[in-house]
This record gives sequence, C-alpha cells and structure tokens, in this order.
Amino acid sequence: MKIGIIGTGAVGKMLGTKMTELGHEVKMGSRTANNEKAAEWAKAAGAKASQGTFADAAAFGEMVFNCTRGEVSMQALNAAGAKNLDGKILVDVANPLDFSKGMPPTLTPSLANTHSLGEEIQKAFPAARVVKALNTMNCSLMVNPKLVDGSHDLFMCGNDITAKVAVANLLEQFGWSEVIDLGDITSSRATEMLLPIWIRLMMKYQTPNFNFKIVK
Amino acid sequence: MKIGIIGTGAVGKMLGTKMTELGHEVKMGSRTANNEKAAEWAKAAGAKASQGTFADAAAFGEMVFNCTRGEVSMQALNAAGAKNLDGKILVDVANPLDFSKGMPPTLTPSLANTHSLGEEIQKAFPAARVVKALNTMNCSLMVNPKLVDGSHDLFMCGNDITAKVAVANLLEQFGWSEVIDLGDITSSRATEMLLPIWIRLMMKYQTPNFNFKIVK
Repeated sequence: MKIGIIGTGAVGKMLGTKMTELGHEVKMGSRTANNEKAAEWAKAAGAKASQGTFADAAAFGEMVFNCTRGEVSMQALNAAGAKNLDGKILVDVANPLDFSKGMPPTLTPSLANTHSLGEEIQKAFPAARVVKALNTMNCSLMVNPKLVDGSHDLFMCGNDITAKVAVANLLEQFGWSEVIDLGDITSSRATEMLLPIWIRLMMKYQTPNFNFKIVK
Repeated sequence: MKIGIIGTGAVGKMLGTKMTELGHEVKMGSRTANNEKAAEWAKAAGAKASQGTFADAAAFGEMVFNCTRGEVSMQALNAAGAKNLDGKILVDVANPLDFSKGMPPTLTPSLANTHSLGEEIQKAFPAARVVKALNTMNCSLMVNPKLVDGSHDLFMCGNDITAKVAVANLLEQFGWSEVIDLGDITSSRATEMLLPIWIRLMMKYQTPNFNFKIVK
C-alpha cells in the first residue's frame, strides 16, 4: 500500500520505518520540501521511503497518518490539502496535549470532553475517512505490541467501517490482534481522555512501555 | 471501623452492606433524617447499620464515603458539614457526569480536564483527607473484584499518604490486592477522565462487569 505520513517526529519515523519494513511505500511529509529530518529518515529507511511536503505525502498515500503534535495538526492537515485527503483513510494518531503549564499536561481545553481532535479533523475534512487509533500508547509499542508482555488493547474509532477494517488489517501486520472498535469518531473524546492517566502512569513507572487492557 | 456513607443510591447501599458484612459500623446519610431508602437499607443490613442525615453520617464516620451523584456532591457534603469532616478520611467515589445531552454523557465541563470533582472537594474541605478511589468501575465490582476474572486494577489518589494506606487496607478486605496509587489529588482528573471510555465500553459490551488493567 502507498502510505503518507504527516509529520517528522518520533511517531512518524517509527511508523514510517515499520511500514517500509512491511513492504509498503511510504512518503513522509513536512512543511518544506527538503526537511532535513525527513530526508535523513528517507535515506535510512531505504528504497521504499521518500519525502516531500505535507501535500506531497497526502497526495501519495492511499492511507495517510497524522503524526503531528495535536497543537499543529489542523495547520499541517490544511497544508496537506483537503483535495489530497478526499476519500483517503486518514489515521489520526495525535493527541491535543497542552504543556503550557508544565507536566503533567492537560488536554487542550477546546478539544477536550465535549470535543476532540479526531472529531474536529473529521469535521474539517468531511470527505476524508478519519480513523482515530494508536494514540493511547508510546510509538515503540505502536509498531511492536510484543514490547509489553501478555495481551493488551488498542482502541480505534471512526465513522467509516471499511476504513476501520483496512486500518485493523494494517495493524495486524504490526502484530496487533486485539483492536477494540469504540464506534464512531465521537469516541475520539474517550481515547484522547486516556492521556492524562497514561502520562501519570508513565511518570510513576518511569517507562512508556505499558498499555491498557480491558479485562472482562 | 465507623463508616459514614453520604448518599442512598446503589453505590452507597452496595458499599454500606459490604462494610457491615465485614464487621464495620455503617451510618447512611441522606438529606432528611427519615429517608425511606436509607431506612429500608439499614433494616435489611442489620444491627451494624443505621441511618440519619448527611451530617449524622459524617459525624459518625472515622471514614466517610461520598456516594452521591457528582452533580449534587458538593451540596451534599456542604450539608454534611465541614466540622463533621475535619480530619476525616473522605473517600470520593463520585464522578461529575453530565447526562443533559443524553447518552453517552460528558464530564461536567467545569469539572473536567483542568479541574476535577476530587480536587474541588479537597479545596472546599481542606481539613478533610480526600482519597479518590473506586470511581472507575461499577459498584458490584467495587465490593467484589472477583466478579471479573483475572487481575485488574483499582486507581487511587490523594494528598495524604496515611489516608491512602487506610483506604487500601479497607479495599484489601473487599478483595482488592492491586491498588495503583497515582499520587496527589490532582490525579482525580485522570481517573474521572476514564469515565467516557468506561461508558462507551459498557454500551459496547452491554455489561458493566469489566475493568481496566495496566499491563507492563
């Protein structure tokens, strides 16, 4: 599959590398056509990796991953361009974290509780098929669920069922057998609201290598 | 131990009954001295159970449980009276859920993300030793962790370590061996923010008999 990655941070690089290893073609997008971090990544990730602008990456991908920080996600996706996202599966991995008052962060107030980043992205790009997923864990665990022993869960939501199935199939290639579908994109509120406890647990355990499991 | 219960709903009754079974003396408080539900409960729960006003219950308890709905918690605790709560361990089991727009509820906006009910109670009753606990599960599971198979977690937070230890000891009598201390009362934000996903999972699974487990 052709994959576009929006963002050049740790999450984008980790996901991008994993997907090239799985045989997918991945284009990483950044604000400028010749971002140093994206170029370095593309060089290291080999023949199936390339880089360009946000718009280049969105146009390239059949599936596009938003791997930007929540506070700049909307700006980056606007730069990627609605026409380049139309009909595409847009996997939103971002969280609207507000670090302005230090650690632990809150969620961005305008994007919490009665709103969420996932929903706002779906509203802003109504022709994209937004799937919120992977946002409740560290990026090392995203691409390697075996990093944490035993069975644990990945939460997903979105309005388009075929898009969710396509994402679940890709996640299965990452090693994820347990994906919990929480329904439509409004459940982004619920998964983004896991971040406050996730961050406190990360501070307590001094490691990001843990995950949630729903025990029934 | 002498226990006061603030509230006559399912949570208060379930916790009250369990604690009388464990040999504790429990007084259930309500708005009026002769609340029918509280009187019925006290009759059914036997010699160790009694009832009275919110103030009676708070004055009686060495440990006091706030088992009211979040939207009326502050009003009920004000009626219980600061002087009856001074120095007491106040276990806040409530969640500030706002059902005004139907299911699933949001958190009450003024008590979410940058605020929480647990913190506001601690601020309003600075001489009480508030411990937020038990608010991330159904009341049947609170008093019977074996209702869900295998290992799963109970989250607790509060500013007073000896109060948390006392609550953990009581919870051990309920059968809880795994209590995760998230630090000071500001972590109430994090545990109250688990409710949106909890409610969506309850709607998905059509049962409240599940719980969170942190897998490391």
